[in-house]
Amino acid sequence: MLVEFSIVPLDKGTHLSSSVAKVLKMVDKSGLDYRLTSMGTIVEGRWQRVMALIEQCHERMMEDSDRVITTIKIDDHRGRTGRLAGKVEAVEKVLGKKLKT
Amino acid sequence: MLVEFSIVPLDKGTHLSSSVAKVLKMVDKSGLDYRLTSMGTIVEGRWQRVMALIEQCHERMMEDSDRVITTIKIDDHRGRTGRLAGKVEAVEKVLGKKLKT
Amino acid sequence: MLVEFSIVPLDKGTHLSSSVAKVLKMVDKSGLDYRLTSMGTIVEGRWQRVMALIEQCHERMMEDSDRVITTIKIDDHRGRTGRLAGKVEAVEKVLGKKLKT
Amino acid sequence: MLVEFSIVPLDKGTHLSSSVAKVLKMVDKSGLDYRLTSMGTIVEGRWQRVMALIEQCHERMMEDSDRVITTIKIDDHRGRTGRLAGKVEAVEKVLGKKLKT
Repeated sequence: MLVEFSIVPLDKGTHLSSSVAKVLKMVDKSGLDYRLTSMGTIVEGRWQRVMALIEQCHERMMEDSDRVITTIKIDDHRGRTGRLAGKVEAVEKVLGKKLKT
Repeated sequence: MLVEFSIVPLDKGTHLSSSVAKVLKMVDKSGLDYRLTSMGTIVEGRWQRVMALIEQCHERMMEDSDRVITTIKIDDHRGRTGRLAGKVEAVEKVLGKKLKT
Repeated sequence: MLVEFSIVPLDKGTHLSSSVAKVLKMVDKSGLDYRLTSMGTIVEGRWQRVMALIEQCHERMMEDSDRVITTIKIDDHRGRTGRLAGKVEAVEKVLGKKLKT
Repeated sequence: MLVEFSIVPLDKGTHLSSSVAKVLKMVDKSGLDYRLTSMGTIVEGRWQRVMALIEQCHERMMEDSDRVITTIKIDDHRGRTGRLAGKVEAVEKVLGKKLKT
């Protein structure tokens, strides 16, 4: 399944790149395929592995912060994999042109 | 922590009350405190129990559907409990009036 | 349409009831039907009025904060109204029991 | 501000690339800078232009569908622009390495 998530501490002020970097370090090491976007991180994998990673990232953020908002969106399509690239390519194919990605 | 979630199948058409009812039956039996709203379900509890419940609900929906979108929003405030009612009451207290809840 | 929204400032620390109260005051005065939950506010109405209200609330929060995260979820079901109460009642009817709301 | 959105019809089944393509055609023509990801579309611009675009996309989807779920997440950071690329680069700079984007 595809899972987009973001983890936002409420007591670290407006500059969050250091906080996000701590999370991304864990994502990058996890072995799961992922993409970092300007609005969150998208990972692909099975429920157990993905959720264990997000829990680990959330707990890491809670070490530095007293209140954290974590949002998770799951798109689970039976039998499908390779969707980090595949979903975008399917849209480009319908339109017959490259989009900004 | 407080966790709002919704589980939406994409191949069940526009009438989802039966699908939602299957999920709510599991939530109601879970023993976790919860509130059903017109836009989702809010539960309060620790990560392991809440996420095990949401996984169970998501998997139940996948039995009937080939594609499911599940959204989860976590508000984790260190040391706080009783927030299903408490957060709303705190806002009413600031305003000095009852709001529609 | 039903619209759930929440507006979170990132530089106001972990206690947000005063900030939320400013927003709810505007919602309560808007004339739109709404429900305040522990995870957000749900309003019912047409796109123009609902979005004008959310913009007004977001701009109010930006007066006090340098960075604000606003999330909006729209459930638009053609021809349907009265869904703030109706969606919950439909689920209760399927289950044949009252749920926690 | 940065705005991520996704527009999901509930009565079009599990294959949504044609529906998404109609929306992306409008985004691509809008003149706003954007990125298509596997989980949504991220645009950068001012409230009025971005929300007019999303309304137009939502209404387009409602022409083909009786029920549509649209989610919108706004990250508004006073005085900042160029954040579609800038936020990702800031995280990479902290980590001192390229991430998957």
